[in-house]
Amino acid sequence: MINPHADAAVRADRAVDHDRLQARIATLATYGGREDGGVSRETLTDVDRAARRYLVDEALSLGCEVAIDDCANLYFRRAGTEDLPPVVTGSHIDTQPIGGKLDGAYGVVGGLEAIAALNDAGIRTRHPIEVVAWTNEEGCRFGPGAMGSSAFVEPAGLAGFRQSEDGRGVRFGDALDRTLSEARDLAHRPLARPLAAYVELHIEQGPVLEQAGLPLGVVTGIQGVRWYRVTCTGQAAHAGTTPMDRRADAMLAAMDLARQLHAQAGEAADTPRVTLGRWLVEPNSVNTIAGKVTFTVDARCPDEGALEHFEAFLEAAARDLGWRGTVEVENVFRKSPTIFPADLVELIGRSCDAVSAAAGHPAARRLSSGAFHDAMYLAQHCPSAMIFVPSKDGISHNAAEATDPVALTLGARALAHALTVLGQGTRP
Amino acid sequence: MINPHADAAVRADRAVDHDRLQARIATLATYGGREDGGVSRETLTDVDRAARRYLVDEALSLGCEVAIDDCANLYFRRAGTEDLPPVVTGSHIDTQPIGGKLDGAYGVVGGLEAIAALNDAGIRTRHPIEVVAWTNEEGCRFGPGAMGSSAFVEPAGLAGFRQSEDGRGVRFGDALDRTLSEARDLAHRPLARPLAAYVELHIEQGPVLEQAGLPLGVVTGIQGVRWYRVTCTGQAAHAGTTPMDRRADAMLAAMDLARQLHAQAGEAADTPRVTLGRWLVEPNSVNTIAGKVTFTVDARCPDEGALEHFEAFLEAAARDLGWRGTVEVENVFRKSPTIFPADLVELIGRSCDAVSAAAGHPAARRLSSGAFHDAMYLAQHCPSAMIFVPSKDGISHNAAEATDPVALTLGARALAHALTVLGQGTRP
Repeated sequence: MINPHADAAVRADRAVDHDRLQARIATLATYGGREDGGVSRETLTDVDRAARRYLVDEALSLGCEVAIDDCANLYFRRAGTEDLPPVVTGSHIDTQPIGGKLDGAYGVVGGLEAIAALNDAGIRTRHPIEVVAWTNEEGCRFGPGAMGSSAFVEPAGLAGFRQSEDGRGVRFGDALDRTLSEARDLAHRPLARPLAAYVELHIEQGPVLEQAGLPLGVVTGIQGVRWYRVTCTGQAAHAGTTPMDRRADAMLAAMDLARQLHAQAGEAADTPRVTLGRWLVEPNSVNTIAGKVTFTVDARCPDEGALEHFEAFLEAAARDLGWRGTVEVENVFRKSPTIFPADLVELIGRSCDAVSAAAGHPAARRLSSGAFHDAMYLAQHCPSAMIFVPSKDGISHNAAEATDPVALTLGARALAHALTVLGQGTRP
Repeated sequence: MINPHADAAVRADRAVDHDRLQARIATLATYGGREDGGVSRETLTDVDRAARRYLVDEALSLGCEVAIDDCANLYFRRAGTEDLPPVVTGSHIDTQPIGGKLDGAYGVVGGLEAIAALNDAGIRTRHPIEVVAWTNEEGCRFGPGAMGSSAFVEPAGLAGFRQSEDGRGVRFGDALDRTLSEARDLAHRPLARPLAAYVELHIEQGPVLEQAGLPLGVVTGIQGVRWYRVTCTGQAAHAGTTPMDRRADAMLAAMDLARQLHAQAGEAADTPRVTLGRWLVEPNSVNTIAGKVTFTVDARCPDEGALEHFEAFLEAAARDLGWRGTVEVENVFRKSPTIFPADLVELIGRSCDAVSAAAGHPAARRLSSGAFHDAMYLAQHCPSAMIFVPSKDGISHNAAEATDPVALTLGARALAHALTVLGQGTRP
């Protein structure tokens, strides 16, 4: 397939500047920077607002128009040649209480680098190109997460988000209003306005790309997830005096069920990842048989049918456990899988493959995301997809979060390449 | 076998008074009595000292000489016709923070009832008969437990016990001195003096007798116990992004090991009871793979060889677990099985069988004790054995602790019967 804009896309990707990208990552990381190399920049705090102001200044220096919406999502727009909906990239700059330099931040700074590259290469696009910094993706200060992208897609949800309180009783709505009042110099954009496409650049937060030795991944979708709380209730009793055949040992029952659930897990497209991460054992004493055990089940899969099958298996296994006690299963959260449009994934994939090939690498890996991202919400609003770069040892939400700088540059090049193609109005 | 003292023993057991026994149990339970029917009478508290004074007054009214030793163990002596070491019965009157009316208390009150029955039946014995109330069996206020019986058997240990502090910083030695100073009117007895035999009457604290429908059990020994702390260390990671085959899930490893340990458990004489009662999972989050899991193993068996075999199995299974992480096994406590002398068990058994038969029941069950008792320490000093009565639903260390009053009377009758035989100097 011949792409008429391939030359411009290649010129854009080659204009990405390794040192400039690294410098912006390092500077942004000084806002909330920690001695251990991590970053503490929870949403709508003073350091978050200072970081926002830094990004605004950088975007202005790149010739962008800067705007904000009612959820304090920030937009940095490079004008297009026609009055068309923008092609949007970006991510978030808020972090976990102790996070790293890259989770979210890389997508925003990588977007600015793509704009800088387009500027340097002298490329005009028909669509405007916008970089967005979504508010409160992490959800650690105010729950739930991904408020900014959710509110953009479904503005009616914002009123509820405004009532959310942090650990010190501060309402999200009040923190939001303070942030908006400090940004009155910026243009205002409505939520839910039309976007031509959304492409998010992010670290993988998992080990797949590193293990495969590949610098780039094209994300085909985001796994669905279901959370359950399983409660096994037996009878606490004396460890010394209670014969084995008279016990209703809740831990033994929970382990029997857990073993069956793990046997359902796998890495095939139709088997879920299963994690039993949280356990509460009562009375939790060395010489007392457990009377009650509560554990959580996190099941994820790109395939909704597999999650449906897993849920049916869990309910049947709990019902048929065959012991003296009871088992209760509650579904406490569920989110269906997100499948990014195949044609957009294919277009992004060609950009990633071209950049990979130029750097001497095999084609980019197609993979699904195990973590949630703002793109999961944007996918309900416009054609969306993502580009991943590797995470060292798969580590994230941690000061040790890191990615080979060369891969960070290749990610920004792939993004600049794809934005150029999309910005010219090429539909995949 | 013809016992020349059988007639006297039968007269003694028939003189046991159901209502008098119930009344003393009820009165003792008023010291620390709770609205829920339980008893809160931790060792050497004001209520414990008041309960001791009640018992002293009761013993004096029965014509006993009352004495105390350096660990505040109380002795109520019914004189013998010769200057011989006493035949001793008893237990303890301290309770768990929330305990029942019977654990320990029944053995002391049952001993007083046996003395009352000997009085009423006009029986003289060659040996003195003594009822003892051992100090701090429970070990909940001051650790370790069974201080009184331990110090009696091994007086050198008392100096160390005196340093033990309760949760408010009170030293056991100071609480002991206060109790001793309030008992200066009592005679003093040395620790470790010769005893002819020790017979302890106690509730089973397990379900075996109730399940068998038997009112009496003869205890052949006390299970040995070994406690282990097992630590599985893997790698905490994101539940969504980490492929199943890349995980070092500490909970999965712990459950694999736990399953193997449970498969070793049973009720045969050479298989241990195994309880995995205490679990600590880190970071214990629904969407994070467990990085570290610590759990406890409580293994008990009347057979030391079986415990030795279990320990070897545990160490081999931990070594051969075959996962990405590490397993550490620490033995944190061990106590060898206690085997009561077969001839004394046989003598006590005949008393229990005779009382059972008279009440229309089959012969008493021979069983080993899963819980520790003062008799475990006395067994190092003199021939010792125990009589059990059933525990409703096997429940103990709980306000709901209960035993059929008829079984309580039969227990006191069996004790009076056995004390009469032993008090006449009959060696089993």
